[in-house]
Amino acid sequence: MCSLNLTAQDEDALFIQKIHEHILAEGRSYEWLSQLCTGYPGRIAGSPQDSGASRFMLDLLQRIGTDTSYLQQTETNYWYRGDIEEAYQVLPDGSLNKLNAIALGGSGATPDRGMTAQILEIQSLDELEKLNDEDVTGKIVFFNRPMDPAQIRTFRAYGGAVDQRVYGPATASKKGAVAAIVRSMTLKKDDIPHTGVTVFADSIAKIPAFGISTNDADKLSKQLKENAVYVYLRNNPADMGLRPTWNVVGEIKGYEKPEEILLVGGHLDSWDVGQGAHDDGSGCIQSVEVLSALKLLGYKPKRTLRAVMFANEENGLAGGRAYARISGEKGEFHLAAIESDAGGFSPRGFSFEADTAVFKNYYRAVTQWLPVLESYGLQFEMGGSGADIGPLKYQKGLLIGLRPDSQRYFDYHHTAADTIDAVNERELKLGAAAMASLIYLIDKYGLN
Amino acid sequence: MCSLNLTAQDEDALFIQKIHEHILAEGRSYEWLSQLCTGYPGRIAGSPQDSGASRFMLDLLQRIGTDTSYLQQTETNYWYRGDIEEAYQVLPDGSLNKLNAIALGGSGATPDRGMTAQILEIQSLDELEKLNDEDVTGKIVFFNRPMDPAQIRTFRAYGGAVDQRVYGPATASKKGAVAAIVRSMTLKKDDIPHTGVTVFADSIAKIPAFGISTNDADKLSKQLKENAVYVYLRNNPADMGLRPTWNVVGEIKGYEKPEEILLVGGHLDSWDVGQGAHDDGSGCIQSVEVLSALKLLGYKPKRTLRAVMFANEENGLAGGRAYARISGEKGEFHLAAIESDAGGFSPRGFSFEADTAVFKNYYRAVTQWLPVLESYGLQFEMGGSGADIGPLKYQKGLLIGLRPDSQRYFDYHHTAADTIDAVNERELKLGAAAMASLIYLIDKYGLN
Repeated sequence: MCSLNLTAQDEDALFIQKIHEHILAEGRSYEWLSQLCTGYPGRIAGSPQDSGASRFMLDLLQRIGTDTSYLQQTETNYWYRGDIEEAYQVLPDGSLNKLNAIALGGSGATPDRGMTAQILEIQSLDELEKLNDEDVTGKIVFFNRPMDPAQIRTFRAYGGAVDQRVYGPATASKKGAVAAIVRSMTLKKDDIPHTGVTVFADSIAKIPAFGISTNDADKLSKQLKENAVYVYLRNNPADMGLRPTWNVVGEIKGYEKPEEILLVGGHLDSWDVGQGAHDDGSGCIQSVEVLSALKLLGYKPKRTLRAVMFANEENGLAGGRAYARISGEKGEFHLAAIESDAGGFSPRGFSFEADTAVFKNYYRAVTQWLPVLESYGLQFEMGGSGADIGPLKYQKGLLIGLRPDSQRYFDYHHTAADTIDAVNERELKLGAAAMASLIYLIDKYGLN
Repeated sequence: MCSLNLTAQDEDALFIQKIHEHILAEGRSYEWLSQLCTGYPGRIAGSPQDSGASRFMLDLLQRIGTDTSYLQQTETNYWYRGDIEEAYQVLPDGSLNKLNAIALGGSGATPDRGMTAQILEIQSLDELEKLNDEDVTGKIVFFNRPMDPAQIRTFRAYGGAVDQRVYGPATASKKGAVAAIVRSMTLKKDDIPHTGVTVFADSIAKIPAFGISTNDADKLSKQLKENAVYVYLRNNPADMGLRPTWNVVGEIKGYEKPEEILLVGGHLDSWDVGQGAHDDGSGCIQSVEVLSALKLLGYKPKRTLRAVMFANEENGLAGGRAYARISGEKGEFHLAAIESDAGGFSPRGFSFEADTAVFKNYYRAVTQWLPVLESYGLQFEMGGSGADIGPLKYQKGLLIGLRPDSQRYFDYHHTAADTIDAVNERELKLGAAAMASLIYLIDKYGLN
């Protein structure tokens, strides 16, 4: 006979190894993500693709053997790009140079026959606010402050530039501009234009607003040093009014503390171009893989494991808000929630946040597990978690963001290039394995 | 007046930040790598591409303003793929199914009109050794043990399978096989065949040997469970005899201890397919970026900084051996050498090795710097460094390998897909910045 005395730590290390082995060798997340991306590309909230994707995910949650799975309906404004989208520089001789441009989500339409106006380059909202209205009136404001390449974390570079896209067009409109063009939110110099949300208060005229590629932005800026530059824009996006959209939820009930919920999630909607592979098909499918892997490995959770694919993260957050509200109405408690919404790249660790009253205790609890997770290249830090789980903060659980390597994210973010081909199977799966490992530890030990 | 009291640690953190800022915002490594890859693809040692690449790198080292730069000639056997390369499965009705196959470097040619033989699937060299010669004679041995997907570090999975490619064909030849086919060394299921070196002792008949894609390997294996499978091979590779090949060296002389050399390097040769972008154009160009960045930042090194692009790593190591020998003849001492030969991916840290008599002291010295490097996501570990700097071990300096994220490396390794498009600019540059940061610290403090 042979007796094996495993410490709890050895046991954890072994099980976490099993999770990785299973997901890397037998996980099906890449195949599922491929089905989601090719079957339901361009899943902007409220669109037919969005509703198709919801049914696909619900079916997938049933197929992997969750105890319960359901749709949670909410609604949001459906912004439709229309079928015309043209942007050209108008040269002095009247000839046209095509610009790589794409309308920003939520922006307005040009007149039917398009519009031509002089562009005015601006580096910041402040700079624009300080201009006299007459210097802006009738112009197309061109926001051209680049993301800072020296930021190691690309999300910080994004955070330092994205105000131009979100608030720039409305600010320009207030000052009398007829349209706005915004340098794409990427660190890459290329010809791919990036979309993303832009916000107009009800009181402000919704003007046309386009993202233009970084190469085109550099070209226009260079020409502006010599001459006035004119741009012709024509498009016909429209607000289609309120449409239903759905959170998709699947759960495995806990046997000991079913009232404590451990959530893994991502958001199911994407922009209407590309396939939403990294943003955020990856996070949704990784969340399914977490439940699937733990189930196939025969793990019986003490707490309730729940995978949630949130609706409408990109332009409204209706899904995340509805989920938190309904959860409150049911008197639920999410002990922890992990969101993956930073791409299906090689995982580097987790970021933790919670209500200040409880954060220290939680963080002390999780840091005990760092040694076993470090051997998978995972690090812990304090910081943000995810937009969709943010509204759960009032429940005073631990909110966690998966932090993958961020270097390539903005090469694809909000573009036609965010397709399944841009996702590496092993990187995607390692992210899922990291999430499953942390869920296992929280489930087993709680957060005390 | 304002007096700024910086601790040494603050100073280091600031300078390392400057290194990163400079390389990410102004570094030219991606542009240089693109020139190397498109100008001199398929730089197998001894080829015209190899010699062209050497001149390109020498010119580049001069352009960045090294104090000295030179070629160091050595020689190696030049293996030439020939102009015929065909591999087909022969179906029972005589029709042919094309296989995605590529001859292994160093393998022999088929008869002029090709050869057809039954294939014999084998999982290990041991299994083959145990067979009776008559069961192998006249057959094509098919090595089909996959790399282990459950290994988090893909290089370990490679290490666990590559004996089949390196020694399999020779072992098969000894047992009377007429040829060998080897499952490609990758974790990906795709149609891309991988080449790489295979070794025949002089006494052993050099038989044809092909890498076949993992998809084809799986297909053949499946069919073998039902029926005998026949394969037709035809190719005409040839050993072209000894040819010159060159290490390319550039240095910036130290002002205080010029006799202590700090080396950064990679290998300039690649396989004859693809562009050798990750393997190992990246390592070469990153090494140039290290010297260039430190120079442009106005850093005056105490010790001599030397960038070395080694010759012939892939199939002979003539460059690394010659470099170490000549260095010994000159009485040189390499206090430290960093090799980057694991792809231009996001850096995860460094691996350290040295003669056991000195290793502990060195490792204690470098671990003092971990706090400042950790904030760039870099970790330290004991382990191998690099094939080309290995022969320097006798000098009892510290040998260091840059360790990038390894998940995607074997998607490209030794294939036509190892092109500049597979390299991400920021990931490449971050690797160079990591190397420059460590070189700065070693130069400033030594290793005591």
